[in-house]
Amino acid sequence: MERDLVDWLQKTLPPHPLLRVGLGDDAAVLSLRQTADLVVTTDSLGDGSHFLLNEAEPRWIGHKCLAANLSDLAAMAAKPVAVVVSVMLPRGHADPLALAKGLYRGMLPLAEQFETIIAGGDTNVWDGPLTVSVTAFGQPTDRGALLRSNARAGDAILVTGELGGSITGRHLDFTPRVAEALLLHQRYDLHAGMDITDGLSLDLSRLCAASGRGALLDAAAIPVSPAAQQLAAADGTDPLHHALSDGEDFELLLTAPRETAEAMLRESPVECGLSIVGEVTARPGMEIREADGHTTTLEPTGFWHG
Amino acid sequence: MERDLVDWLQKTLPPHPLLRVGLGDDAAVLSLRQTADLVVTTDSLGDGSHFLLNEAEPRWIGHKCLAANLSDLAAMAAKPVAVVVSVMLPRGHADPLALAKGLYRGMLPLAEQFETIIAGGDTNVWDGPLTVSVTAFGQPTDRGALLRSNARAGDAILVTGELGGSITGRHLDFTPRVAEALLLHQRYDLHAGMDITDGLSLDLSRLCAASGRGALLDAAAIPVSPAAQQLAAADGTDPLHHALSDGEDFELLLTAPRETAEAMLRESPVECGLSIVGEVTARPGMEIREADGHTTTLEPTGFWHG
Ligand SMILES: [Mg+2]
Ligand SMILES: [Mg+2]
Repeated sequence: MERDLVDWLQKTLPPHPLLRVGLGDDAAVLSLRQTADLVVTTDSLGDGSHFLLNEAEPRWIGHKCLAANLSDLAAMAAKPVAVVVSVMLPRGHADPLALAKGLYRGMLPLAEQFETIIAGGDTNVWDGPLTVSVTAFGQPTDRGALLRSNARAGDAILVTGELGGSITGRHLDFTPRVAEALLLHQRYDLHAGMDITDGLSLDLSRLCAASGRGALLDAAAIPVSPAAQQLAAADGTDPLHHALSDGEDFELLLTAPRETAEAMLRESPVECGLSIVGEVTARPGMEIREADGHTTTLEPTGFWHG
Repeated sequence: MERDLVDWLQKTLPPHPLLRVGLGDDAAVLSLRQTADLVVTTDSLGDGSHFLLNEAEPRWIGHKCLAANLSDLAAMAAKPVAVVVSVMLPRGHADPLALAKGLYRGMLPLAEQFETIIAGGDTNVWDGPLTVSVTAFGQPTDRGALLRSNARAGDAILVTGELGGSITGRHLDFTPRVAEALLLHQRYDLHAGMDITDGLSLDLSRLCAASGRGALLDAAAIPVSPAAQQLAAADGTDPLHHALSDGEDFELLLTAPRETAEAMLRESPVECGLSIVGEVTARPGMEIREADGHTTTLEPTGFWHG
């Protein structure tokens, strides 16, 4: 099976000038240009936790597994260079080879879009459920990697796009905010950043903890997605709660000086949209200013794989 | 759980001058020296396929998962630089945090031994069995990466150590042949190399295929491990069959010009031992010369995860 897949991949994967040795040896060899820093991230996704193999097409599962890792490179404002992919296929599957090809068919267009080498991989058949583990490498720009730990009191807190309700589909078919992160980090003086994978409130609490700061969110300013509105209408909950806690938004969470953030909104340089949703505070802990003007403590709640 | 583990890892992982940003951000940032090539390999290991969680101590499982990846760097004669680790812990486990720490406790001494940064990771709890996915990066020496595809007709075929029977214990507690590979590649004119993970006959067939060559093995010269002898005595099979097919030896399979190989044996530069086990042939296909002088076709058989 692995041999057949490697044969197929060797025919299917496009060549790349930086890929000196690709699939078929013990490891891949990448030829990096004069490089200072290399950004590396890894994420494993499993059937039943991050996707449902009996509901989602393999190519969307593959797309998600690659996109989630590229989103972590975007979170660092790093330009993707390459990924390696490790797949464990369920032995009971009717056609493991077709499943594996389907996963790669979902990854290939995304890799091409972001000029990312699929440099190698490992494929096993086992008695457990499908897992896909991707490791992605990128290179920061001249401005360096965008970290979580550099938010400053008084910074505006920004998010790209709209939040909540990704379970209705977006968690599978999203485009990682790689281009947006590179553009924004290049053009503006961003202080801190990460991607929103586990819900705005939980991820913001992590950014605050890494920076030794707190946050005051403005409820009315949080961009609630139509999907979150629909979910809330269906289950009688608050759409804002979905936007704060659903997770798998794969949007960017950024901080920047107030005047920079206002320039970003004015100039509107990214199609996905940008919102100022609050402010970094000197005092740790999170609060939210409700629509009625009341400010209450915000507990980090979110979707936590673990 | 992941937060607790990350806290523990941040206290436990040693600092490293090349690790600019470690655990706790979206990705790790490695600061590589002026680098030409980067060697990357990935391997996922799962409970029931590569180890048995109810029989092996977590630290030996962790050791194996890291060692298997370092063995692939050794196979390329690349010096290890860093690894990232992605773990999926079984939800039903009595103490997932202790399990995760146990895995890392197995990896830490090995990482230290080979000056390898544990640069980051991802930890999930899920409904499937334990899987550990490691991606390792290395840098080739000035002599470049050692590939499978460069074996030449007339080359001697060498192996390190002894083969077969690793299931009795060595598949868990082996030391990857990193130091040996670097030393041999530096000192001798090696043509091709890989590590033996799926059995000598199957892995040699891959090396031959990659090089467009064949092989003639000398049965009497194959170093059969005591474990293989014991297994054969117990199950009434041929010890040689174990040495050819058992897999998970994690020894090096090398080719070099005959006179070079003889110098290697004479000078005996590695403690694990070296044997010349046959010769690369111009004609594809594998044969084996039996002890009685007869030569028969050798079919690649081995342990194939897939
Ligand atoms: Mg190998
Ligand atoms: Mg992230």
